[in-house]
Amino acid sequence: MMRAARYYGKEDVRIENTPRPQLSPGQILIKPSHVGICGTDLHEYIAGPTFAPIEPHAVTRETIPIGMGHEFSGTILEVSPDVPNASSFKPGQKCAIQPTIFCQSCGACRNGVENACPNGGFIGLSGGGGGLSEAVAVPWDAVLPLPENVELDTGALVEPLSVAWHAVSASPLVEIGPKNASVLVLGGGPIGLAVVQVLVAHGTKKIIMSEIAAQRQAFAREFGAHHVLAPNVYDVVGVSRELCHGEGPDIVFDCAGVPASFESACKAIKARGTVVNVAIWEKPISFNPNSLVFNEGKYVGVLGYQRKDFVEVIKAIADGRLQPNKMITRKIPLNDLVEKGILALIKEKDRHVKILVDMEMA
Amino acid sequence: MMRAARYYGKEDVRIENTPRPQLSPGQILIKPSHVGICGTDLHEYIAGPTFAPIEPHAVTRETIPIGMGHEFSGTILEVSPDVPNASSFKPGQKCAIQPTIFCQSCGACRNGVENACPNGGFIGLSGGGGGLSEAVAVPWDAVLPLPENVELDTGALVEPLSVAWHAVSASPLVEIGPKNASVLVLGGGPIGLAVVQVLVAHGTKKIIMSEIAAQRQAFAREFGAHHVLAPNVYDVVGVSRELCHGEGPDIVFDCAGVPASFESACKAIKARGTVVNVAIWEKPISFNPNSLVFNEGKYVGVLGYQRKDFVEVIKAIADGRLQPNKMITRKIPLNDLVEKGILALIKEKDRHVKILVDMEMA
Repeated sequence: MMRAARYYGKEDVRIENTPRPQLSPGQILIKPSHVGICGTDLHEYIAGPTFAPIEPHAVTRETIPIGMGHEFSGTILEVSPDVPNASSFKPGQKCAIQPTIFCQSCGACRNGVENACPNGGFIGLSGGGGGLSEAVAVPWDAVLPLPENVELDTGALVEPLSVAWHAVSASPLVEIGPKNASVLVLGGGPIGLAVVQVLVAHGTKKIIMSEIAAQRQAFAREFGAHHVLAPNVYDVVGVSRELCHGEGPDIVFDCAGVPASFESACKAIKARGTVVNVAIWEKPISFNPNSLVFNEGKYVGVLGYQRKDFVEVIKAIADGRLQPNKMITRKIPLNDLVEKGILALIKEKDRHVKILVDMEMA
Repeated sequence: MMRAARYYGKEDVRIENTPRPQLSPGQILIKPSHVGICGTDLHEYIAGPTFAPIEPHAVTRETIPIGMGHEFSGTILEVSPDVPNASSFKPGQKCAIQPTIFCQSCGACRNGVENACPNGGFIGLSGGGGGLSEAVAVPWDAVLPLPENVELDTGALVEPLSVAWHAVSASPLVEIGPKNASVLVLGGGPIGLAVVQVLVAHGTKKIIMSEIAAQRQAFAREFGAHHVLAPNVYDVVGVSRELCHGEGPDIVFDCAGVPASFESACKAIKARGTVVNVAIWEKPISFNPNSLVFNEGKYVGVLGYQRKDFVEVIKAIADGRLQPNKMITRKIPLNDLVEKGILALIKEKDRHVKILVDMEMA
């Protein structure tokens, strides 16, 4: 048996004893080290189950209760001998886990867009165990070894940074040339701040952040945003247009996902600019497509990440382009998950960026 | 004085005597030959003024009444001597007119996206005269000479075909490779049928048209659509997915611009597919951005055209890739504009694609 955090339903997360996972063919057994608490975890706690399966999940066949924790690093405990290049995975090796679950047979999977697999999910949200446990068995290709100079706490930040890396890769930043690009980021939560860092890592000329909370504004500045605007004080569309030669930013990342941010994003972009939506939405909004017609704008949806995003993020951390550790605003032991983790993030969300569960902490 | 059609307001279009235009520096005087009646003209007639200026237009400084007719061909009457390469424009030369009006000073104009100029408009809708007159003075760079083998009636189709060419150019068709691309076109009105023709001209592998009206379905087949679906009979999303290897089309062109087409477009595209909106919308719709998140979809707004689209369309007509003359379902004299033109298109819209006013017809 082992200790693990399991999700039973709305406001019901339990730290309890569960069976240790068995290693199946093609899997690697991981000892989780640091585990981030994500906005999705909070949504499941406050208003779920949404992602967590109440019918058997298409791929894992599991229903709640399920293991929690999908942003995690760990060390290798055991490698199934049938894993390709099994000898390249060594017990004790530090790694980050890409938690994507996908069906491998739908059109999206066949076309290499497995992150948009309609049957997909995440380890720690859809079954298959989770990072908030003493051990978890994951598919071998979910395991990304960390270089020597990347610490395990930093390794737990690879997942949210990969969301941002994926979003930036789906934008025309590289096509425009980061040194010429002006970018507006709406919302300074963990993902918005991760987008700022990824933009900085790319050498983006002008990064404007729109965020109400003072603490998050300070984080945005610290991570390298060049201009930080409070949307309750400034006309973000007008000011960001001024800051971009009267034309508006080339790209807007909507990391807020509310009607006001949607409207600002469509209005702010320059002619033929691009809005990248990095948010998951709770309900439909009112939209006049003319708002993207008259400026020939583009609206791009992105979802999660792919293995290549993890690879790029780990490389950028290793060579110092990404220095994300200031995102970690608290470390807690597993037993404090609900009180000092989930509830703290709900009640004092502006004070924190990432709370990590340190699985070694007592 | 000369005869011209002028727009006074809702349901008020008059054929009357007006002063002949004076040739200003940089202009070419055109004798219009054939003039198409466009959906925008119908909107202005039924519910306008919308585009037609009731306050002085930012560029033309005119208010209604204004000259009508923005889809037209003609012959050169006179060339202002200061026009660059004035001698290359010869009196009697056949030409198509690109009616775009733009301010030349805003961000969009400075970035070469003058079709998205917020101060812009169209000859024949925003002042500056119109094609439905015996003479019209236009900027020299609005004049595109027609090759010998392109007739003047065909020349009046260059404008709507340029809308379609522009929309197709803004899509990833060429990037995907037309020979590999599956495309769904929603709506078989004049623009939807023009999009089908432009897709055929590019050699697109699979073109699916969704259209309710039987007459328009027949036009779609005639212009080269490979599959034609009635959305009131078939589940367009499901059937077009089946027709595209269970994955959905790479690109959907929304040429209908109604809530149902918007929803179908977002649902039908394959993972990372693109919706190109070619419609102008009358009012906001309900939109859940998740519908473009979970398939990593793109939504692209396009507006009008640019000179290069006119150039490409004229080239494609001249070399036979575009054979659009079957779009012309009636020719009428100027005096019949309202009764046999505008009202016929409103009352019997499915019977017609393009009604042309033949300025020589008595």
